Order: sequence, then C-alpha cells, then structure tokens
Amino acid sequence: PEVTIEEEQMVASAATILARRGVAMSAGDPDRRLDMLVSSQIELRSAWTTIESRCIEWAGLLLPTLDLDAKRDLIPSVIASSESLQVAASDLGTDPPPHPPGVEEWCAMKESAERCIGIAKSLELSEQAIRSLAANYLPTLSKLVGPLGAAKLCVLAGGRERLARMPSGSIQVLGAHAAMAAHRRGAPPPKHGSVIFSMPQVSRSPRWVRGKIARFLAGKASIASRIDHFDGTPWSDDEIAEIHKKSEEIRSRFPSPPRRK
Amino acid sequence: PEVTIEEEQMVASAATILARRGVAMSAGDPDRRLDMLVSSQIELRSAWTTIESRCIEWAGLLLPTLDLDAKRDLIPSVIASSESLQVAASDLGTDPPPHPPGVEEWCAMKESAERCIGIAKSLELSEQAIRSLAANYLPTLSKLVGPLGAAKLCVLAGGRERLARMPSGSIQVLGAHAAMAAHRRGAPPPKHGSVIFSMPQVSRSPRWVRGKIARFLAGKASIASRIDHFDGTPWSDDEIAEIHKKSEEIRSRFPSPPRRK
Repeated sequence: PEVTIEEEQMVASAATILARRGVAMSAGDPDRRLDMLVSSQIELRSAWTTIESRCIEWAGLLLPTLDLDAKRDLIPSVIASSESLQVAASDLGTDPPPHPPGVEEWCAMKESAERCIGIAKSLELSEQAIRSLAANYLPTLSKLVGPLGAAKLCVLAGGRERLARMPSGSIQVLGAHAAMAAHRRGAPPPKHGSVIFSMPQVSRSPRWVRGKIARFLAGKASIASRIDHFDGTPWSDDEIAEIHKKSEEIRSRFPSPPRRK
Repeated sequence: PEVTIEEEQMVASAATILARRGVAMSAGDPDRRLDMLVSSQIELRSAWTTIESRCIEWAGLLLPTLDLDAKRDLIPSVIASSESLQVAASDLGTDPPPHPPGVEEWCAMKESAERCIGIAKSLELSEQAIRSLAANYLPTLSKLVGPLGAAKLCVLAGGRERLARMPSGSIQVLGAHAAMAAHRRGAPPPKHGSVIFSMPQVSRSPRWVRGKIARFLAGKASIASRIDHFDGTPWSDDEIAEIHKKSEEIRSRFPSPPRRK
C-alpha cells in the first residue's frame, strides 16, 4: 500500500522525538558528564601551562634583573593587578624595565597574566565539581584512589560499566598509552598507568616494588569499580585502611633491590 | 702571577654586569618582543579553540534541543552571564535542561565559558599590540602584507635581519613547514607558505595562478623587508597600489586552467 503524506510526516516526527529523547537521556548519563568535566580539566590545565610559562618568559624579557625562579608564583598576579610594568617591577622588588613596553604591548602582557590567573581559578572549580560527582558516582573507588583518580580511571576506561568489566591488568596500565604502544613493538610492559602511579603507595615506593604494589592496588580498584557499578555496599574506612596496610606489607617484604641476573 | 681574591671578585662581578647588560639589551630588541607577542597570540588562539569547542559540546550535552550551529556565537556569552542553566536555556530560546547539572558542575561550566570569553578579549588586545609594533618596526612590509602578516613573517624567519637576508623563494614558503618536509621526501614543492597564502591576492585567485602571484609577492616582500631593515624610504601608497595592480595583471593573463600534459 502507498504511504500517504500524513503517514510520512508522522513517521518523520516520531523519529525526531525518539532521537531527541536519546540525546536527552545521554545528558542524564553521568559517564558523559564526568567525561565533559575531566576533559575540560585536562584542556584547561594544558592551556594554563602554556600561558603561564609565556607570562613568566615575557616578564623575564622585559625585567632582566627579576629572579624568575624565586618569584615565579607571584609574577602573574602582580602583573595582572599592576597599572604599569614599572609598578609591577617595584612590587616584585626588582629594577624598573630598561626598555619599558608600549601601551598596547603592556595591555597584551597584562591580559595574558589575567588569563593565567583566571584559568587557575577555573581549574579549582572544575576540580571541586569532579570531586563531588565522582564521590557520588564512584564512592568506593573514590575512597581507594581519591575522587580525582577515580574520575580519571572511569573516563580513561570509557565509562563506569566498561571499567567494571575490565580485567585488573588493564586498569593497572590505564593512562600508559605510550608505554603500551611501545610494549606492542617489543618493549617490556609498563608497570602502571598514570592514575595508579599517582597513588603515593606506588610513586613513593622504591622502584623494585612499584610493579607489585600497582598490581595489588589495580586488583582492589577493579573490585571497587564493580561494587560501585553493581550497587554493592561501599567499603568502610576500616576496609580501606586494611588495603593500605597490605600495600605497606608488600613494600616491607622487599627492602632492597633484587640482584641482577 | 697569582690572582688575588679581590681580583677574582672583580672579574666575577664584571662578568655578571656584562651578562646583565646582555639580557637588558635583548629586552630592547624588537625581534624578541614581537616574538613574545606573536607566540602568545598563537598560544591563546589554540587555547581558545579548545575551550570554546568544549563549551559548545558541554551546552549541547545538557541542552539537547539547542541548535548548536545557529547559536554557536551566543552560547559562551549567555552561559557566562546567566545565573543558572535554566536561565541560560530560556535566554537561548530552548527547552530547559532535562537533567540539570549540580551546583559545582554548573560553576565549572560557567567558569569555562567565562574563560572562553576572556581569552577572546585577550586575543583582540594582543592583535592590537602586534599591529602597532609591526607598523613601527616593519612599515613597508606591513603596508604590503598587513601588519599581522608582516609580524608573522618576521617571527617565522627568526628576526628582521634574517628576513631581510632571506632569498625571496624562502619567504614565499615561510609557514609551510609540513609541505617543505614533504618536499624533501620527494613531494612537489609548496607554492606558498601560510602568510603569503593568507593575502587575498593569492587565496582568492584561481589555483593555477596562485603560485605565480605568490612568487611575485614574495619578491616584493623580500624588497620591502630590506627597505625596513636597512632604513630605506618606506613605499608610498601609490607604489603599493602599483604592486597590487601588477598581481591582478598576472591573474588576468591566465584566465583558464592550463591544459594537462
């Protein structure tokens, strides 16, 4: 039977409604919201690093007697709040600029310092947002590796469900893309990804036990993400303390580097 | 003869004074100041691109009925100035968010939109500064290729003196790093770098004359940079108009594409 124009229109509008509902549902998906927050955080941090070093280098060019290492943290805020580079120089306790910049040049410099401070503020706020979303969405994993680490693991895995279904060996190396690529070309496998490494139990341990502790913690992180995804009872502080104690036991079991074979 | 401690100290302090004077001199070097401005501009623009697209994508996730293409330019400023996402949605003429964000999430989103606008403002100011510095430092070249193009050529060449001593064929391909690298591996040579291409005489001409016009203009740019560096008399507007007329003559001499051999 022929399709009437009315029927065609009905099908078209139904498709639009269904598609819209799909988009609207995805807004409720905490995985995508966490991804937005964490990606925005990463992008802001990379912008901050670039703009901050430019700001310091610029100050160093125009104020040659300024001690860039000692005053690094002060420079952007002093430049952003000063009326001229001469004032900024005296606030920073250094000689006035031998070749002061023109008005427009000074404005560009000051604006870039303001940008630098503004981004630092944004970073703080987005970190707060990530912490609170992660503590809600991944309560056990947040207790184990910290809310920021939990958020990163979840985003790197591509969502909470994929994280919960991931073997712990994959969790162990999440964030070690480059090392895994090298491994595929024959290099030894990485001992840990960036998230597991950032845990003090791993990064503050001697080299030769890092891999062992990372493997242990990745196993625990794997269980934690399953508890979070499949609505288990979150771990208590005692259970977390128990895990931290065990990772210290591993460390004390290998006090000296292994002999070279 | 032995060197006394006093003499040693004198030599040391003399070295420090000379080194300081060197640093102070470099602050007076317009090449380095232009490099600071142009590099900062490039870094700010790349930060802006990333943060702006994140901001649009974020709005699209939480406001699924929003038309992202039509409202793209409005989204960051409306979000930055609204009190909540609900208000922003109604200001943007779209449905309220089906899953409104939490307080912290909204703050992070709003901050990121503010960052986006702030960087756009910085970009404008740094462009002004580049224009005024370039018009002073490279008057003839600025007239020929515009102050921003002149500044970019100068920074890409590594300073005004190096630009003035550069063969015009090199000026023609300044900014075409990738194409030049491919040329070294056997690809045909690039017809123009990014700066010469950005001149409307080149980019708005048909493909088959672009290389010819780029070569002609690069030759003129080479002369212009020599005039600027070796204190020649800057070109008058008539001389510039003459050059533009000639490049149009080249275009009209090749109205149709060449036959394939």
